[in-house]
Amino acid sequence: MKKLNWGMIGGGEGSQIGPAHRLGALADGNFVLAAGALDHNAEKGRAYAQSLGVAADRAYGDWQEMLKGESGREDRVDLVTVATPNSTHFEITKAFLEGGFNVLCEKPMTMTVEEGEEIVKIAAKTGKICAVNYCYSAYPMVREMREMVRSGQLGKVRLIVTNFSHGHHGDATDADNPRVRWRYDPAMAGVSGQFADCGIHALHMASFIAGDTVRSLSADFASTIPSRQLEDDAMVNFRLEGGTVGRLWTSSVAIGRQHGFDIQVFGETGGMRWRSEEPNQVYYTPVGGRTQIMEKGDSGLSDEAQRLSRVAIAHPEGFPLAVANIYVDLASALRGERRDGLPTAEDGLRSMAAVHQAVASATKQGEWVDARPPMYR
Amino acid sequence: MKKLNWGMIGGGEGSQIGPAHRLGALADGNFVLAAGALDHNAEKGRAYAQSLGVAADRAYGDWQEMLKGESGREDRVDLVTVATPNSTHFEITKAFLEGGFNVLCEKPMTMTVEEGEEIVKIAAKTGKICAVNYCYSAYPMVREMREMVRSGQLGKVRLIVTNFSHGHHGDATDADNPRVRWRYDPAMAGVSGQFADCGIHALHMASFIAGDTVRSLSADFASTIPSRQLEDDAMVNFRLEGGTVGRLWTSSVAIGRQHGFDIQVFGETGGMRWRSEEPNQVYYTPVGGRTQIMEKGDSGLSDEAQRLSRVAIAHPEGFPLAVANIYVDLASALRGERRDGLPTAEDGLRSMAAVHQAVASATKQGEWVDARPPMYR
Amino acid sequence: MKKLNWGMIGGGEGSQIGPAHRLGALADGNFVLAAGALDHNAEKGRAYAQSLGVAADRAYGDWQEMLKGESGREDRVDLVTVATPNSTHFEITKAFLEGGFNVLCEKPMTMTVEEGEEIVKIAAKTGKICAVNYCYSAYPMVREMREMVRSGQLGKVRLIVTNFSHGHHGDATDADNPRVRWRYDPAMAGVSGQFADCGIHALHMASFIAGDTVRSLSADFASTIPSRQLEDDAMVNFRLEGGTVGRLWTSSVAIGRQHGFDIQVFGETGGMRWRSEEPNQVYYTPVGGRTQIMEKGDSGLSDEAQRLSRVAIAHPEGFPLAVANIYVDLASALRGERRDGLPTAEDGLRSMAAVHQAVASATKQGEWVDARPPMYR
Amino acid sequence: MKKLNWGMIGGGEGSQIGPAHRLGALADGNFVLAAGALDHNAEKGRAYAQSLGVAADRAYGDWQEMLKGESGREDRVDLVTVATPNSTHFEITKAFLEGGFNVLCEKPMTMTVEEGEEIVKIAAKTGKICAVNYCYSAYPMVREMREMVRSGQLGKVRLIVTNFSHGHHGDATDADNPRVRWRYDPAMAGVSGQFADCGIHALHMASFIAGDTVRSLSADFASTIPSRQLEDDAMVNFRLEGGTVGRLWTSSVAIGRQHGFDIQVFGETGGMRWRSEEPNQVYYTPVGGRTQIMEKGDSGLSDEAQRLSRVAIAHPEGFPLAVANIYVDLASALRGERRDGLPTAEDGLRSMAAVHQAVASATKQGEWVDARPPMYR
Repeated sequence: MKKLNWGMIGGGEGSQIGPAHRLGALADGNFVLAAGALDHNAEKGRAYAQSLGVAADRAYGDWQEMLKGESGREDRVDLVTVATPNSTHFEITKAFLEGGFNVLCEKPMTMTVEEGEEIVKIAAKTGKICAVNYCYSAYPMVREMREMVRSGQLGKVRLIVTNFSHGHHGDATDADNPRVRWRYDPAMAGVSGQFADCGIHALHMASFIAGDTVRSLSADFASTIPSRQLEDDAMVNFRLEGGTVGRLWTSSVAIGRQHGFDIQVFGETGGMRWRSEEPNQVYYTPVGGRTQIMEKGDSGLSDEAQRLSRVAIAHPEGFPLAVANIYVDLASALRGERRDGLPTAEDGLRSMAAVHQAVASATKQGEWVDARPPMYR
Repeated sequence: MKKLNWGMIGGGEGSQIGPAHRLGALADGNFVLAAGALDHNAEKGRAYAQSLGVAADRAYGDWQEMLKGESGREDRVDLVTVATPNSTHFEITKAFLEGGFNVLCEKPMTMTVEEGEEIVKIAAKTGKICAVNYCYSAYPMVREMREMVRSGQLGKVRLIVTNFSHGHHGDATDADNPRVRWRYDPAMAGVSGQFADCGIHALHMASFIAGDTVRSLSADFASTIPSRQLEDDAMVNFRLEGGTVGRLWTSSVAIGRQHGFDIQVFGETGGMRWRSEEPNQVYYTPVGGRTQIMEKGDSGLSDEAQRLSRVAIAHPEGFPLAVANIYVDLASALRGERRDGLPTAEDGLRSMAAVHQAVASATKQGEWVDARPPMYR
Repeated sequence: MKKLNWGMIGGGEGSQIGPAHRLGALADGNFVLAAGALDHNAEKGRAYAQSLGVAADRAYGDWQEMLKGESGREDRVDLVTVATPNSTHFEITKAFLEGGFNVLCEKPMTMTVEEGEEIVKIAAKTGKICAVNYCYSAYPMVREMREMVRSGQLGKVRLIVTNFSHGHHGDATDADNPRVRWRYDPAMAGVSGQFADCGIHALHMASFIAGDTVRSLSADFASTIPSRQLEDDAMVNFRLEGGTVGRLWTSSVAIGRQHGFDIQVFGETGGMRWRSEEPNQVYYTPVGGRTQIMEKGDSGLSDEAQRLSRVAIAHPEGFPLAVANIYVDLASALRGERRDGLPTAEDGLRSMAAVHQAVASATKQGEWVDARPPMYR
Repeated sequence: MKKLNWGMIGGGEGSQIGPAHRLGALADGNFVLAAGALDHNAEKGRAYAQSLGVAADRAYGDWQEMLKGESGREDRVDLVTVATPNSTHFEITKAFLEGGFNVLCEKPMTMTVEEGEEIVKIAAKTGKICAVNYCYSAYPMVREMREMVRSGQLGKVRLIVTNFSHGHHGDATDADNPRVRWRYDPAMAGVSGQFADCGIHALHMASFIAGDTVRSLSADFASTIPSRQLEDDAMVNFRLEGGTVGRLWTSSVAIGRQHGFDIQVFGETGGMRWRSEEPNQVYYTPVGGRTQIMEKGDSGLSDEAQRLSRVAIAHPEGFPLAVANIYVDLASALRGERRDGLPTAEDGLRSMAAVHQAVASATKQGEWVDARPPMYR
């Protein structure tokens, strides 16, 4: 099978997200790194790209140069990954979509709802793929949960309870550490801290598994370390369009929780739960029955879960391979096979609307607000 | 040591709570069952009491008869346990307190806030013990957590997150089962369903461990099974007087959760968590350090935790012995040794105020309300 | 129901085992403590017994006095518990059986195989109950496992793997502590250390659940702390009469393991496992199917498991109530209802034979030996 | 950094091990697949290699052709992975080593001890790398355990207890399934079934963490499914050179265990345990202290553990990336940086000697035997 050409913007030497994307794209052999503008320092970016095997003429100094260079090539990249600082996602994604490229954008896709709506419209107009990296949704057992809901195994979903709460920003004496501080500074992080950073993954997951979207929400934000201007702890109650009740807690001061992303889904005829720190199992309970431990790789799982698992039952697969699964799905989409499962620009937009509306609700003492982007109301 | 005379109201043959109290009172040899009015059927109650070793003249037909009979005796019961239907707790507790008896009342202590205030005043006036059976607070490791907060090991408590969520009422086809239905029927259960039934234990625990009381709250209630008039799922955000942020989720439709009572406490210098289904361990994490597993019976624990543990480290002790620990503390209190730790009428009153105010908040779309009883505002 | 008269030998003030037996006997209201010879110091024993409510004329100075005193009474004790130092169990148990009393003996029942055979014969001749306190077998979920084997749910049992390994004697600097040292001193502990102390519970459990007895074994003993004359770590491979393969590891130097008594049972059509630190669950897996979590108190369990559970599903019950279940079964047996489930003198004898034969095997470099007492060969 | 040329023998289309090696080699970008003889069907092998990006002249029909072809090239492969059927490992590994190539051989390295000794000698003579794929040893937290032993944190290691027991061959009705049957057929599997297949990983791990080698052992083998000629369950007691006591249980009929590879290490001053199904944590207990949960990615870990971890704390990494870590270490070795940690031909030889000696011991009723290869006695 022909390899796909892949380009990357951001993810330079020393970044954490760069290696995760490279491993994700390369692990299954679908992509070759053909082009890149990896660093805000043009020279360093060019050199690093070449050290990773990119040809000299495709090791670009910045994204504008890359857009121009690739646009003129017959063997132009099939996919561009945008892994730059958050505030630049919109501009770059927009430019590449308009240039006729397929894009995988890191989250958040944009900083405002208006920008999000613009991206959605451009993606629709161009017909290009615009995926957003909600990678937790690509764990095989998360896909299994979605299939279980789809196939009616839980009946109507009544209730979803999800947490994304860690304790890595719980040390007040470390709060001025630049690696931590920017997340709670509106000038750098935007309108929301922990909810925009982590909570939004949990909200996407709830929608993803339920196969439904968020209609309304009510938020309670707290800055438990008083020097912070943005929230480090948040509770968001929500309702999906179909009436499902949602409860989402996210925190960065939950000392002792390491990753702390869990989800529980309760329907009319069963319940199930999944933990990101034990991602290869789902605990499923049919109403009136015993809890069953479902294992990744078990022959009884859905095709969808099998497709995204590489090794036999009880050989754990972890986070880097969930990212890789996003690239597996991108490769399928680029080859015209399927797009189902890929988080889209619509997901990116809905997340941004939820963030802004949660901030509005929290400001108004938890008043219930419409969580939908204007274009979907 | 002289045994204490114990009397019981309610808890007749076939009741579930009767055996739990008898085991609790008898297990450690502090009490003898000296009197009882065990059943609303007078004859059955008298016979059953005698079968349990109560003398014929102290096997009463109803609580009024018992109040009169015991009041006239020199060897009157040292303690009366009230384990009757919820709506009768107030009347009986009030009568016995006024008669000069010490009382352990099952929760809820009353149905209204006004009744609760009345009990608190009577208890204060008479100087008698009026304890309420928030028995989870008597697990040794829960006491250890309270000691850890007291001694400053966690610094200021920033955040408490607690769940009491099970799935035993999740079957809609069983919703008309009388054992289930009454809990969601205002005529029988009062103003609240699941929050009053289970959530209130979690709210008490948060206050108990933090050593602080609830100031305000905001509630989101849902009846996920539509035929129910009262909530079967609730989220309550709250604030303690000292500013601690609280988050409490309670549900009876969380299919697959068995008991589901957990609490996490996060402070400036550490976090900890405890699960009712694994009650002999606390997971404690100092800020910046590794999570440690603390075990009941370990020699390094507080005197308070040691005092309420009967068998060596890693021999689990369960729920019935948490109830027994309430009786251990009652025996101490009756012997004039200590009252610390016993849940009091004040706790019963604060719980009732929280229930009523949560209902008010939920009715007003989650508006934040004062959670305190009027007499404490 | 008439209370049964209970007498106790040993278990004086400050002992650990005394309170466990008193809680066990009293918790469910079947017994009253009617007589006792609680201490090797006669005066202290008499005083302590009276403090526990024993009448002065039945608070005896030693077991001989108690045997004589009780033998002459019409209301003689229905049951005698022997909780004295190990080396005295044989003599006392023998005397009381011959005197026509029913006995619950702490383990080990005897120090030699010959003594064990003698007790078995006396118990058979007199028709009296001679139970041995293998109390782990009385956990509800252990009984459930036995019922599952009995009913054929696992098919033929192929393999049992059990561990009873803790780390509480792992500190070499504490090895001379008298509380620890005696266990590894042949003058006090007999022929075996850790295997006789803990391993034997695991071996009994294997037989109990499988409904079969040990035919042969091979042992590897180690004194990992070199100053010890007896083993602090042992591996015993064994075979049951029906061919089941057994593997038993026991250790007291497994630092970090707290209680560490687990059992796994594997048959033709399923497997299951149970841990003493999480005693209210069994993990059961049908061949080719998913693992199921079985919970104490679940309505689908056997009558046997239900009978020995006091509180609802997911309210944990712990070790003291497993001891209490032995007394529940003793009360049933004394009332002529059933004897099934009670560990017997035969169990005590088979255990002692296994200990002596394991020592013999270990001495002979793990040679396979007949594990049966001579009278059962 | 220049990419290394990698060649693969075996691992053709549809094999399970091929993708695991390709992911392992490619994930971190150190290697390019430059040559291959992937299939026993020459044409299919050539075509598949080219579909994976191998140039036509390096897509070989068999390993002999590849040996010849690569030997003549300046850009010959830096590393050859041998992932063919077990019985061919020796021949191919030998030929490539003698041809001056570096080799990663799947386990078992050979079928006999004599062959193993030959490989060790050839590797020593040529100075080439001959690694064996004991990939579990490359999990970051396994390396951490080895570092903890090395640095003396546990004191002298007294005891190692390890299990590699699953239930995937527990269905007797499936025993004739060719995928299962060959493992228990001496004509195909050699002298041992489950011990050679899985147990040997556990034995290697014990040596690897302890930094010591196996001196003697005693084995008890069982074929719990009677039609099997080779063991499906085995217990091996062993001693390391330094006196450490070892206990190893391996089974393929432990229904309900999925992967089931665990190890516990107990020393003078602490104990620790690790489970392959939760590979990112180690539970460590200092003597007299509380159990601590150590997490992959935690900043307090050794450089060795950090080096082999790709994503932040609490993002799990699984089995495929443990295989990838073997390739990370191979790349380091090929670049002359370090060889420490890589499982070697000596490991492969010692494993084979242990297998043959365990069979000998089991045949002689568990007699203790020397486990060392003759050349190391």
